[in-house]
Amino acid sequence: MNKRKIINDPVYGFISISSDLLYDLVDHPYFQRLRRIKQLGLADVVYPGALHTRFHHALGAMHLMSQALKVLQEKGHSISESEFEAAQAAILLHDLGHGPFSHVLESVLLQHVAHESITLVMMKALNRQMDGRLDLAIQMFEGTYPRKFFHQMVSSQLDMDRMDYLNRDSFYTGVIEGSIGADRLIKMLDVSDDQLVVEEKGLLSIENFLHARRLMYWQVYLHKTLLSAQAMLTQILQRARELSESGTTLFATPDFARFLHNNFSLEDFDIHQDLLESFNGLDDNDVWASVKGWRTHPDPVLSTLCTMLLNRKLFKISFYDSPPDEALLADLRSQLTASGIAKEQTDYFLVKGETTNWAYAKELDPIRVKMKNGALLDIADASDIPTIKALTKIVRKYYVCWAKNVSLRG
Amino acid sequence: MNKRKIINDPVYGFISISSDLLYDLVDHPYFQRLRRIKQLGLADVVYPGALHTRFHHALGAMHLMSQALKVLQEKGHSISESEFEAAQAAILLHDLGHGPFSHVLESVLLQHVAHESITLVMMKALNRQMDGRLDLAIQMFEGTYPRKFFHQMVSSQLDMDRMDYLNRDSFYTGVIEGSIGADRLIKMLDVSDDQLVVEEKGLLSIENFLHARRLMYWQVYLHKTLLSAQAMLTQILQRARELSESGTTLFATPDFARFLHNNFSLEDFDIHQDLLESFNGLDDNDVWASVKGWRTHPDPVLSTLCTMLLNRKLFKISFYDSPPDEALLADLRSQLTASGIAKEQTDYFLVKGETTNWAYAKELDPIRVKMKNGALLDIADASDIPTIKALTKIVRKYYVCWAKNVSLRG
Amino acid sequence: MNKRKIINDPVYGFISISSDLLYDLVDHPYFQRLRRIKQLGLADVVYPGALHTRFHHALGAMHLMSQALKVLQEKGHSISESEFEAAQAAILLHDLGHGPFSHVLESVLLQHVAHESITLVMMKALNRQMDGRLDLAIQMFEGTYPRKFFHQMVSSQLDMDRMDYLNRDSFYTGVIEGSIGADRLIKMLDVSDDQLVVEEKGLLSIENFLHARRLMYWQVYLHKTLLSAQAMLTQILQRARELSESGTTLFATPDFARFLHNNFSLEDFDIHQDLLESFNGLDDNDVWASVKGWRTHPDPVLSTLCTMLLNRKLFKISFYDSPPDEALLADLRSQLTASGIAKEQTDYFLVKGETTNWAYAKELDPIRVKMKNGALLDIADASDIPTIKALTKIVRKYYVCWAKNVSLRG
Amino acid sequence: MNKRKIINDPVYGFISISSDLLYDLVDHPYFQRLRRIKQLGLADVVYPGALHTRFHHALGAMHLMSQALKVLQEKGHSISESEFEAAQAAILLHDLGHGPFSHVLESVLLQHVAHESITLVMMKALNRQMDGRLDLAIQMFEGTYPRKFFHQMVSSQLDMDRMDYLNRDSFYTGVIEGSIGADRLIKMLDVSDDQLVVEEKGLLSIENFLHARRLMYWQVYLHKTLLSAQAMLTQILQRARELSESGTTLFATPDFARFLHNNFSLEDFDIHQDLLESFNGLDDNDVWASVKGWRTHPDPVLSTLCTMLLNRKLFKISFYDSPPDEALLADLRSQLTASGIAKEQTDYFLVKGETTNWAYAKELDPIRVKMKNGALLDIADASDIPTIKALTKIVRKYYVCWAKNVSLRG
Repeated sequence: MNKRKIINDPVYGFISISSDLLYDLVDHPYFQRLRRIKQLGLADVVYPGALHTRFHHALGAMHLMSQALKVLQEKGHSISESEFEAAQAAILLHDLGHGPFSHVLESVLLQHVAHESITLVMMKALNRQMDGRLDLAIQMFEGTYPRKFFHQMVSSQLDMDRMDYLNRDSFYTGVIEGSIGADRLIKMLDVSDDQLVVEEKGLLSIENFLHARRLMYWQVYLHKTLLSAQAMLTQILQRARELSESGTTLFATPDFARFLHNNFSLEDFDIHQDLLESFNGLDDNDVWASVKGWRTHPDPVLSTLCTMLLNRKLFKISFYDSPPDEALLADLRSQLTASGIAKEQTDYFLVKGETTNWAYAKELDPIRVKMKNGALLDIADASDIPTIKALTKIVRKYYVCWAKNVSLRG
Repeated sequence: MNKRKIINDPVYGFISISSDLLYDLVDHPYFQRLRRIKQLGLADVVYPGALHTRFHHALGAMHLMSQALKVLQEKGHSISESEFEAAQAAILLHDLGHGPFSHVLESVLLQHVAHESITLVMMKALNRQMDGRLDLAIQMFEGTYPRKFFHQMVSSQLDMDRMDYLNRDSFYTGVIEGSIGADRLIKMLDVSDDQLVVEEKGLLSIENFLHARRLMYWQVYLHKTLLSAQAMLTQILQRARELSESGTTLFATPDFARFLHNNFSLEDFDIHQDLLESFNGLDDNDVWASVKGWRTHPDPVLSTLCTMLLNRKLFKISFYDSPPDEALLADLRSQLTASGIAKEQTDYFLVKGETTNWAYAKELDPIRVKMKNGALLDIADASDIPTIKALTKIVRKYYVCWAKNVSLRG
Repeated sequence: MNKRKIINDPVYGFISISSDLLYDLVDHPYFQRLRRIKQLGLADVVYPGALHTRFHHALGAMHLMSQALKVLQEKGHSISESEFEAAQAAILLHDLGHGPFSHVLESVLLQHVAHESITLVMMKALNRQMDGRLDLAIQMFEGTYPRKFFHQMVSSQLDMDRMDYLNRDSFYTGVIEGSIGADRLIKMLDVSDDQLVVEEKGLLSIENFLHARRLMYWQVYLHKTLLSAQAMLTQILQRARELSESGTTLFATPDFARFLHNNFSLEDFDIHQDLLESFNGLDDNDVWASVKGWRTHPDPVLSTLCTMLLNRKLFKISFYDSPPDEALLADLRSQLTASGIAKEQTDYFLVKGETTNWAYAKELDPIRVKMKNGALLDIADASDIPTIKALTKIVRKYYVCWAKNVSLRG
Repeated sequence: MNKRKIINDPVYGFISISSDLLYDLVDHPYFQRLRRIKQLGLADVVYPGALHTRFHHALGAMHLMSQALKVLQEKGHSISESEFEAAQAAILLHDLGHGPFSHVLESVLLQHVAHESITLVMMKALNRQMDGRLDLAIQMFEGTYPRKFFHQMVSSQLDMDRMDYLNRDSFYTGVIEGSIGADRLIKMLDVSDDQLVVEEKGLLSIENFLHARRLMYWQVYLHKTLLSAQAMLTQILQRARELSESGTTLFATPDFARFLHNNFSLEDFDIHQDLLESFNGLDDNDVWASVKGWRTHPDPVLSTLCTMLLNRKLFKISFYDSPPDEALLADLRSQLTASGIAKEQTDYFLVKGETTNWAYAKELDPIRVKMKNGALLDIADASDIPTIKALTKIVRKYYVCWAKNVSLRG
């Protein structure tokens, strides 16, 4: 049987699955689950087109990986067939451990387990099922493979992950100003001393990439309305967990119920052999089905929040340059109690948060530019333009969101 | 409060909500529900980008409506503000009555109620809530408004519904050959004797539109793999309903359970005041959450089918020019029993069907061309090209799909 | 020196020049001349964006060639490095012999020499300068290389030439309905018995390709206004040549003057060693500079026609299904004489012509489909859709164009 | 006769000509001439797709103007029909005075006349021919019309001119990172105290616009290879003029010859009634036809430079942060004389220049942001991001270009 396959992609036209191993990975239930997890979680409350999944993103990142590796080969770098395939496998699987509405879920239901850790657990499980065919991919993913640039293409400030997600998120949201010109960026990649570098003539493209990334953060990932919806979903899950812990019966799919009733650690994935399967049973549908099931729940906090989220009656949200002072919060709390919300429950309807936008993390993980004279420079030093240096600063904003004009159900 | 709003759309750039009424309609829970119903149902098993919703489609169709009405105004046809708004409202709401995976659902859970009927029930309910502000829109939707072209723009072979869905489906699937050039089509529209017509110089555009539509049918809507997945979901719901009727307990969201346990008629929507609310509680998430919940159900037929669909182990499917003969089916049935499937259960794993592609339904609803000399001709007569006439033929295909290499769970 | 190069292309993103030979060809004055010859001649009188050159088209066709060859390699067909390069060179050079406004020019100034013949003369001249490095490319171009599919990719009904020009012309005119989905078409190519074939699952794509091509003919290549402008330019050159032959002095660039004063045959290119250089000196600028220079020429026919074309006062044009009868022409001629045009000069202002659109030339050069059962079928037989057969008919139209409301200069 | 017209545009889809006046302007020989003047002059030496004309740009800017005016109307600003038309006319005509290869030509042949002055001369001439129908448009163009925002939409740092040219240049070069999201920008425009302002929520869009503009400068308008080609064309015209002044016969179209032999001032356009017609006779074809005619001229400087430019053998070019020192130049000059170039002629083959990129000219012409609280702020003050302030600095670069490995003709 011929396992080669071509998949339509509105972003790149076509994506080729170019080996049996890659085909088997895509075909595996662990990967198929990603079809049911949206890349941008709740972002469609703002951008109704932003419904693309982690499945499509992972395929897209694999596509860019193969483009980039071909560019490196054309520039004379030797890359073996098994390295080529392993790098594609590593990027294909890099998001395997994401749950639905990842950041929300991690902050409530899986507080002690980072999604990267679950990704690794799943990759290792796959590797066992596949008799070690993922050994090399796992080394690249973890960064233990000696040729560092493979890891950097999987995970760094210039990796195929963010190239695809910026590209794809810009495309599906319709925020075309976020377009990064991935084609050109990839043509500018090179390798020097086993490190991923950018040719000097790619300087402008990198600058544009960093600007576009910063714009996408403010315009999409940290959009006020999205933050508000995320805060609401967090409160919903928080309340559901508390009710569940206090013995109240709650509608939930079996797998989702398991996570709602427990507080698992990473070690639990070793101890309970079937926990990984339960995790693999989770996706966006569990969350939405639960929110819908709970909208008529007797608990007025839970049912009110669920009804609001479903009907897109979102919390009002304001941004501040410094942490909001207590007087402001007290005022909002008294508005809430005036609406009939019990004092001890105002925190379900009033959320503080902070958010940061760090366009270029120079120290952590520099982007290296290979100058025409052969020197390697950090991008912020290679550019004679003050804007790049400006991007190395972290921009932090504080926000408060709360239920204006709420009327409790029940 | 300013209710004007602009919504990002990867297809058209931006969509404007241009009046308070339209804003209130979009904001209503009936319309917000469409955010959770994918336009193309299961089509993402073939085209992973095809995740756009009926919400976005309805907004897009409203956008095209406003473009088309402006063109008619520029050509000298008087259209009042209230007609303009009503036509936008009518197209905005035209798909309100769709359930999740509409055709699948209608064939099992709502066998006696067409989605168009529910649309009208919902529009009338909205109209009551809005004190008659939808009177005109409902007349246009039903076709009772004297100026027929408004109805034809909402529902005909050249309506804004199909212009948007062809455009949008082509965009999100990545099947760019299906692009119809909606911009140009719309510029070619005109009105003659209160009928919607096309200018003669738009002949080529219409031909292209009909060809593109036909291509989209074969390439997308009737794609083999999609038909197979739909057949599987139908069998799953069928089995679930039977189990439910025979008293077996089944996981389901409350609203979904109500439809699973009953067989409602259109009259029931009058009798049970809350049935419409239950219907409005249904969306794609119920179906997927149920399929996931059922994949470990004790019934091996149900759990096997659910596991297969979730992991994309789809039925094999073959097309035939005539109905498949009994010998073929008998052979497939014996393959199934050889796999351990009980004789009386083979029909869950073997589905026959037929499908038709009718590119241009000349008799039912002709597309009229206004020739330069003023005459109105049917497009098939206006064109000197034999291909248009060829498109008036119905192409019918038969298919059989079955579970190859199935192994029953449990 | 590194001769690898990447060229920006709005249509495909980037085009790579992937070998020294290809670089040297692109760099050669014969190829650089194509920068100054528009692909669509006068089409910008209708589509102002259609200014792309034969230079860009040739690069685009080379790009598609490399894409297609990679697809064939992935399907297991062995293609050597020198075959790969030669096929790219052959398609790169396939239009070298085009003069400015090719069909117009050929009909007046180079009546006895087809542009394909000059292409071959230039390829052979290049080959001599390059010590035989083009031997293989020339065999592929001429069709003498034993593996026929290379020639078919350069010149057939499914060649890279038309894939690029349809793609590119659709893009630059803005006639997006003409988009052919070249990506998918190319993925469907295969080779069987050294013939280029299409996989059965590409059937719909081919049908769409043929429809799109037919649409582009009517909408662009045979657009009434373009035919009218071409007729005017033909009359201008005809008049200029006659004046020149009768000894009248005419402004012209030196190279253009040489062709205006002579009537060369293909043999002349052998006899006059410098004729090829003169030909290589010709481009669109000569024609426009002359038309501008002649708009104040004492000859009223010449100056009137030139002024009209420059200011886009074009002939009126009508299409007919059969040759226009003499009464009609007589009537138009009398209108012209009534405007002050001498009887013997009416033919400069009244042009008859005919034009044909043959979407699929089945007999001449069939498109072969490789069915799943291995059989090779002609596309018109493989398709069960009557429209393809319809496309094998030649559609012929007749036209008359004439100067309505002309007022002679001088 | 219906003068309404729709023109295809790959950038915006369609452009409507929406009034008789606008139709007559587009139809006028002054405007039709712009069909033959490329927007980006020689830029196709780098970006072969960049062949779009000032004709198409002017139409595109008119299209954006109508979009923007409609946005202002929807926001409640009253704009009369004649203001609407006048603003469209003003932007349509704003580039009328450009000659071919404008900056090159102005630096040699029309040293004393800015293209803006000629635009005004032509607008006034048109106004006379049209009986004052352009009075209002001319006021808007000149900035004397009391409602300042009309002038600002025609000419300011946020005018429709640069929105279209950035959009269009990005599109046709294929430098997609330069995309500015004109649609969104335009939706963010507003008017406050008769000044053009941007809504606060458009802040990110403006930042992106300024970054994109800066990128387009470095990547396109000031691309090294383009500067080199421009330097060569300047030297060619310089030499041609000197030869012409010294009595040498030179091939040239009549109109071009007139400008080559004279050094006109703005006043000459008043004195010589026919000078404007001669100017209107100039376009890109004159320059290219001359360069081609001169490539065999007896003067070795002229013929060498022309041959080099035609065959794309361009000067080598280097950038410097400070003016290049004399030692460097002396070294290059001695290389040139070693190649056989006479000492007094080295300056034809060695060009110094400087170039600046000023992304945001805050002082000259601020972009005003209307904050939610109603205050008007300069964009650099409204943004809390240091990058905007960085863009107010002028970046200046120096360059030297020279003929490496030149061999003189003749």
